Amino acid sequence: MRPLLIHKIWKTLPPVEFLSLTSSGSAADLLSFLSLFFFFSFCRWIKFEEKVEEGGERWSKPHVTTLSLHSLFELRTCISKGTISLDLEKVIAIQTEKHTLRPELSKKLQDVLLRKPRHQTTKSQLRMTAEICTLNNLFKKKIPAGTEVFNVLVGEVDFLDKPFVAFVRLQEAVVLGALTEVAFAIRFLFILLGPRAKVKAYHEIGRSIATLLTDELFQRVALRARGREDLIAGIDEFLDELTVLPPGKWDPTIRITPPKYLPSPHKRISMHFRESRSDCNGNMSMVDDRHTHGHQHTSEELKRTGRLFGGLIKDIRRKAPWLMSDFYDALNIQCLSAILYIYLATVTNAITFGGMLGDATDNMQVSVRLLPMNMQVFETCSLTNLGLFPSTRDYSLDYLEFRLWIGLWVAFFGLILVATEASYLVQYFTRFTEEGFCALISFIFIYDAIKKMLALGDYFPINWDYKINDGTFYSCSCNASERGKSRHLNGTMSPREQYLEHANWTLLTKKECLQLGGHLVGNSCNYVPYISFMSFILFLGTFLCSMTLKNFKTSRYFPTALRKMVSDFSIILAILIFCGIDAAFGLETPKLIVPSEFKPTNPERGWVVFPFGANPWWVCLLSAVPAVLVIILIFMDQQITAVILNRKEYKLQKGAGFHLDFFCVSLLMILTSVTGLPWYVSATVISLAHMDSLKKESTTSAPGEQPKFLGIREQRLTGLVVFILTGLSVFLAPVLKYIPMPVLYGIFLYMGVATLSSIQFMDRVQLLLMPAKHQPDFIYLRHVPLRRVHLFTFIQMLCLAVLWVLKSTVAAIIFPLMLLALVGIRKAMECIFSLHDLSWLDDIMPDTERKEEEKNPQRKTEQDDSDSEDSELMYQEKGPEINISVN
Amino acid sequence: MRPLLIHKIWKTLPPVEFLSLTSSGSAADLLSFLSLFFFFSFCRWIKFEEKVEEGGERWSKPHVTTLSLHSLFELRTCISKGTISLDLEKVIAIQTEKHTLRPELSKKLQDVLLRKPRHQTTKSQLRMTAEICTLNNLFKKKIPAGTEVFNVLVGEVDFLDKPFVAFVRLQEAVVLGALTEVAFAIRFLFILLGPRAKVKAYHEIGRSIATLLTDELFQRVALRARGREDLIAGIDEFLDELTVLPPGKWDPTIRITPPKYLPSPHKRISMHFRESRSDCNGNMSMVDDRHTHGHQHTSEELKRTGRLFGGLIKDIRRKAPWLMSDFYDALNIQCLSAILYIYLATVTNAITFGGMLGDATDNMQVSVRLLPMNMQVFETCSLTNLGLFPSTRDYSLDYLEFRLWIGLWVAFFGLILVATEASYLVQYFTRFTEEGFCALISFIFIYDAIKKMLALGDYFPINWDYKINDGTFYSCSCNASERGKSRHLNGTMSPREQYLEHANWTLLTKKECLQLGGHLVGNSCNYVPYISFMSFILFLGTFLCSMTLKNFKTSRYFPTALRKMVSDFSIILAILIFCGIDAAFGLETPKLIVPSEFKPTNPERGWVVFPFGANPWWVCLLSAVPAVLVIILIFMDQQITAVILNRKEYKLQKGAGFHLDFFCVSLLMILTSVTGLPWYVSATVISLAHMDSLKKESTTSAPGEQPKFLGIREQRLTGLVVFILTGLSVFLAPVLKYIPMPVLYGIFLYMGVATLSSIQFMDRVQLLLMPAKHQPDFIYLRHVPLRRVHLFTFIQMLCLAVLWVLKSTVAAIIFPLMLLALVGIRKAMECIFSLHDLSWLDDIMPDTERKEEEKNPQRKTEQDDSDSEDSELMYQEKGPEINISVN
Repeated sequence: MRPLLIHKIWKTLPPVEFLSLTSSGSAADLLSFLSLFFFFSFCRWIKFEEKVEEGGERWSKPHVTTLSLHSLFELRTCISKGTISLDLEKVIAIQTEKHTLRPELSKKLQDVLLRKPRHQTTKSQLRMTAEICTLNNLFKKKIPAGTEVFNVLVGEVDFLDKPFVAFVRLQEAVVLGALTEVAFAIRFLFILLGPRAKVKAYHEIGRSIATLLTDELFQRVALRARGREDLIAGIDEFLDELTVLPPGKWDPTIRITPPKYLPSPHKRISMHFRESRSDCNGNMSMVDDRHTHGHQHTSEELKRTGRLFGGLIKDIRRKAPWLMSDFYDALNIQCLSAILYIYLATVTNAITFGGMLGDATDNMQVSVRLLPMNMQVFETCSLTNLGLFPSTRDYSLDYLEFRLWIGLWVAFFGLILVATEASYLVQYFTRFTEEGFCALISFIFIYDAIKKMLALGDYFPINWDYKINDGTFYSCSCNASERGKSRHLNGTMSPREQYLEHANWTLLTKKECLQLGGHLVGNSCNYVPYISFMSFILFLGTFLCSMTLKNFKTSRYFPTALRKMVSDFSIILAILIFCGIDAAFGLETPKLIVPSEFKPTNPERGWVVFPFGANPWWVCLLSAVPAVLVIILIFMDQQITAVILNRKEYKLQKGAGFHLDFFCVSLLMILTSVTGLPWYVSATVISLAHMDSLKKESTTSAPGEQPKFLGIREQRLTGLVVFILTGLSVFLAPVLKYIPMPVLYGIFLYMGVATLSSIQFMDRVQLLLMPAKHQPDFIYLRHVPLRRVHLFTFIQMLCLAVLWVLKSTVAAIIFPLMLLALVGIRKAMECIFSLHDLSWLDDIMPDTERKEEEKNPQRKTEQDDSDSEDSELMYQEKGPEINISVN
Repeated sequence: MRPLLIHKIWKTLPPVEFLSLTSSGSAADLLSFLSLFFFFSFCRWIKFEEKVEEGGERWSKPHVTTLSLHSLFELRTCISKGTISLDLEKVIAIQTEKHTLRPELSKKLQDVLLRKPRHQTTKSQLRMTAEICTLNNLFKKKIPAGTEVFNVLVGEVDFLDKPFVAFVRLQEAVVLGALTEVAFAIRFLFILLGPRAKVKAYHEIGRSIATLLTDELFQRVALRARGREDLIAGIDEFLDELTVLPPGKWDPTIRITPPKYLPSPHKRISMHFRESRSDCNGNMSMVDDRHTHGHQHTSEELKRTGRLFGGLIKDIRRKAPWLMSDFYDALNIQCLSAILYIYLATVTNAITFGGMLGDATDNMQVSVRLLPMNMQVFETCSLTNLGLFPSTRDYSLDYLEFRLWIGLWVAFFGLILVATEASYLVQYFTRFTEEGFCALISFIFIYDAIKKMLALGDYFPINWDYKINDGTFYSCSCNASERGKSRHLNGTMSPREQYLEHANWTLLTKKECLQLGGHLVGNSCNYVPYISFMSFILFLGTFLCSMTLKNFKTSRYFPTALRKMVSDFSIILAILIFCGIDAAFGLETPKLIVPSEFKPTNPERGWVVFPFGANPWWVCLLSAVPAVLVIILIFMDQQITAVILNRKEYKLQKGAGFHLDFFCVSLLMILTSVTGLPWYVSATVISLAHMDSLKKESTTSAPGEQPKFLGIREQRLTGLVVFILTGLSVFLAPVLKYIPMPVLYGIFLYMGVATLSSIQFMDRVQLLLMPAKHQPDFIYLRHVPLRRVHLFTFIQMLCLAVLWVLKSTVAAIIFPLMLLALVGIRKAMECIFSLHDLSWLDDIMPDTERKEEEKNPQRKTEQDDSDSEDSELMYQEKGPEINISVN
């Protein structure tokens, strides 16, 4: 206890101290170990290593600890030769007096380490620093309660001639005041003191033991160890599992960013018992992963009961308990953003498509839609609908009555499909079909957005031949109609009269002029300056802005919470920004005009369509034929969307309702047919956008850990509110009229591009342009030859092209059949591709799977074997797919 | 030799084979080892590991090999127990008969491995695959001649009950035909055959020995080993240097991308002998790096000789031998791109600034510049010049004569500076000063580009109140002048006459109307539609396009050569694309108009300015005062640019010529003053752009290796051609008139932004917006507390703001003095910041360094010591600075 000596040691040689500790909880994935390495150089491990940078004011980025093997072996030697005290029973009560603790603490540590007489000479080195306490507030919330600390103290002193090592486990965790950043209890202590001039080696040993104790497997060992041998065995096991980077091929000063996915400790434990080692590239662990990924097609929801309406009843039973939570789960600000985004998308979609429908059906259908549906299901008029109307006109049938009958037939067929549990067929919709459909819908969005933009160029034509110098020649004036002209020719008007007449007409605006029967005369009448360019700037600006804001979440700037908020509200922000820009400039860009009255669009028709009277009786039966096509389309569209939304990777909790959803669709079909409202098809893109805007991510995580994707906020409220709002759009007209259409087209373009870029198909298309050495490390590229991947992509592109042509030409009426043909094409591809390739690029169809199983009954068991990684793989990979980018 | 058995083995168990060999050359950094692991799973190492993906058609991306420690230990056991044959003398001549080699090869291998009787049972397993040969063409050029191969063959057979291992070194390398991908000679062989069911462990051992033999240190060991003990010792050394990743914190299936920088093998060897270990984060190796990076201020070029013109003479002596190579080094397509890019930048710059000068000096100066200069030095009129002219007008002095005298004084002062070797002071221009100046110039580029764009909005005003419906009210017509009006009022014109008169006037264009003295009447006369918007689209489009194309080099698409080409020509491409777009739409956007005649701009002045006559005699003496300011500005501008261009990281070979350059500048000063041409200051931004467009990178590199930055194509030809072209611009006018000005403004914006984003200062400004945990791992952040970094950034921002204000206001005349003050401020900062901090954030000034050395004479030696990493660091770090992004 000679303070002078202590002081001297401090001045000449700041001892290196580590603090850290251990977890008591039973939860296996507690962030349990935390080690601090402080003062001169000061590190902590929560899950990954963080170091206090020079100057002591800043934690480094969390990084994967890289150790030198040398120091690990030195550590092993230390443990095998040093003092080991397990289960010290003495519990030390310590007052949390900071700053002045030095003498008390040394006393206490003396108590803790009572059995080791040699420690007497060194314990005075421990020093409490006040700075540590200032760090702890922000930090505490990152660590779960119940965490215990492992405390490593390393230093060098000049009165020792060989290193002193102690590893201490306390029987109960003890709070040692300001020894740790946060007041967690200490369970383990590691002390290494040695002679001078080797402080760096001691550092490394300290880092090694700290890393060792952040390992879940060694934690178990350390907690249960009965003696030195157990610890040594634990270290050896740890050593055996190390990943090693060769020197000269890696710069050890690089701080490795923590990986996105980590092998789960459970797997490591089981691996451990199986004593299997990973192969050349460790595909081992992926095989296991694949079992947990992919679709849940064969899951309980799609099992056939064999009874009429059996699936429907099961769906209702499954869904009923969630009814209440479907509403209170919506209490989150994210839902507000989702409502605004989806509402605007829906309204624009309705108005855009509504405009199309209005054009094609002589305003016979209303374009205001207001019926809320199950979850994301809502109405957009679909592709066949537009194909139908022209033919009714050709045969002079009554459109609405014909349509009513088709609708009734469709509903009838739909109910049959529900009764026979046809949704079971959903299992045949593999990734191939999904992606084809999804890509098609995305292309339609992109194509429509651009087409509408170009159409603006027709509404507001640009005079490309404009010459600045000829400004004096451009004019547009309103001329009188024939009446005036003839009078002028007759010479019945005096020049003065003529002049006044002329002046009166020129006071009219374009619209008034045309209304009064005048003519617009002049070379600038056909052109509208400014508007087209402004629209184009708004369109591209909105698109780029929403892309940028969406990606803002992954930028380095500003705190995470702010970035997440900006990203969640990216679409709304982009719309607001560009509405603001538009309003600031004040040009008459085309605005979103919603009807301000609620009435049938064509005065000839009433609210309800009557089934008889207008058409001959045989039309009722004939309409069953188009109804078959319609039901195929609706079934495909509805179910593919449902399949995508119910993918396992979205972690939905409340179960799917394939039968129930389709039942609702069938019932609504009757309603819309009777009232003459447009039919609806669930819109894949908007549904995915809805889903995407409702992602939940974990907020607290250890430094360096990726936030976990927790699932989707499953609830009915956002959908409900969106459709109520859509119905109320009539009253929102004064607000909505400030939104320029080009901005909304920009959002459409964004939605199309975002959906398109999230499917694996597009990744593969991009591969076509990449030289092999630059291709990303997609998991399927590790397993399927590149040529096969390209062939698969080509076939998909071909199918898509055929679908697109069908959609665009007169053959549109057989489009639904072609969509169904996708399933057949996929089936036929089994002749070209091996099942192994298909299992990586696509899913395996259920009957193929069954057949395979029958052929090789032992294969299934083989797969669970540790040798299975080269056998035919049945499950979907975890590569990028409709992506939940949890960044 | 029972073929049936062999066949059976093949069917049931394809043996795993590795091929590889070793280097004979003395060059230490030969890509010397190459190992192949083929058939069932097939890997090769050139520098990093590549694996044949499943299906056998595709090499994976090169990645850092991750091994398990376990297999390394197994390898060690193998070596310690297996057969070791070193320096086999038997040379085997093998005909390169492919495909049919099987029996021959087995015979030959039997010869090679003659001494090991046990091998007889296994050699028949080796099999030549024809596929390998198809891969070798593309691959061969990546590997330097003289490379030898290390060949690893691993397999399992069912007639062995314990593993058979052999490590063979041949005394001379031997070509074994199609055993390797390319016909390189084999030097080493490693064979591992063992009983079944452990093939994965064998794989791992094979990978381990292959990795081991790609290590430069072990290669030496393996080549010189005299026995088993040497190999074991080599493995132990390798093990000792391993970097280790803890299990559970890293997923071993991740393929690690090769790092950008690798520790050099030489350092590892010397480290090895010093037996020092890296510290907590291995800062060790960085200290060494810093010695080799940073400025070469104190280099030979800036040493004072103490004689009059001593520096100049030395410069000439140094430069003379390079004179020829300055021309023939330019024979590269890259130079063509550089010429076009820099030519367009120069012409635009000249015309933009020329326009400014013309406005400010009443067209007294010509704006065509044509004098080629040293390397990047060329003329743009500078900041003070604009400040001067107004004052001459105030005192009614003759501008050009006054300017001539100032020019003569400046040249005189310049020669004095050259004679006294004042360029020696360049050493005081640290990064702080450079960055301040560089950022200022960049801001001027950005500001000017945007200002010019906004000015276009004034030339072509937009009618923001335009209403589509009011199209009939917009007109602009040419009215007669008073003459016509008065006649009309007098009633001397009949209405018919009046009408015709009116009609005649309306046939005039705007320009004609104004020339004939008419008035433009109408509410649309002040507005020009389309042009502003189109200009804006071209401006932003060019900027974004050139940014995108420049970054295209780092994209994944298309082969490297194409990407490099696109990146080199990015600016030209962007200009061409947007000229094309502009031409396609055909709107009258403002174009680049160069004078089509070569003549003095103001008819009052001749070609030469006479020194006397127009001003009183005392003006000759008085002009020495402004000359002092001008010489400071020119000195700062010229020398800072020269310092930046001569940074060590650009790897210039031909030496700097600070004195010579300044001598040329002084002489040209006289010439331009006499002829009344504008003075020139070397333009930092354009010089950097010039440099940037002439970067050389290594083309051949091992897979996974970053292309190396080899230096700059140092030559005079591009500079010369650019200035000849600039002179000839008069004749190029018909071509240049197709280039819209907004496109060129876009390029200016790009140049400003590119230069700005390349300086460390901007990195630090960005840090202000980032939460600590997202900050990139800049090397100075590891060593300087964040608060100090921010303080440093704040001071720099403050200086920049003051400079900007000075430049923009009437105080512009003292601007050069303030620029000089930067050096003083930097000096004063030594009171606030520790030398340690400054050494990381900036350079150390030469006298400070000397003082420090005097104070602590032992420090210098300490630095070379292995313990030096925490001492005050004198050298510049290798962090991002004026960046040579070698991607």
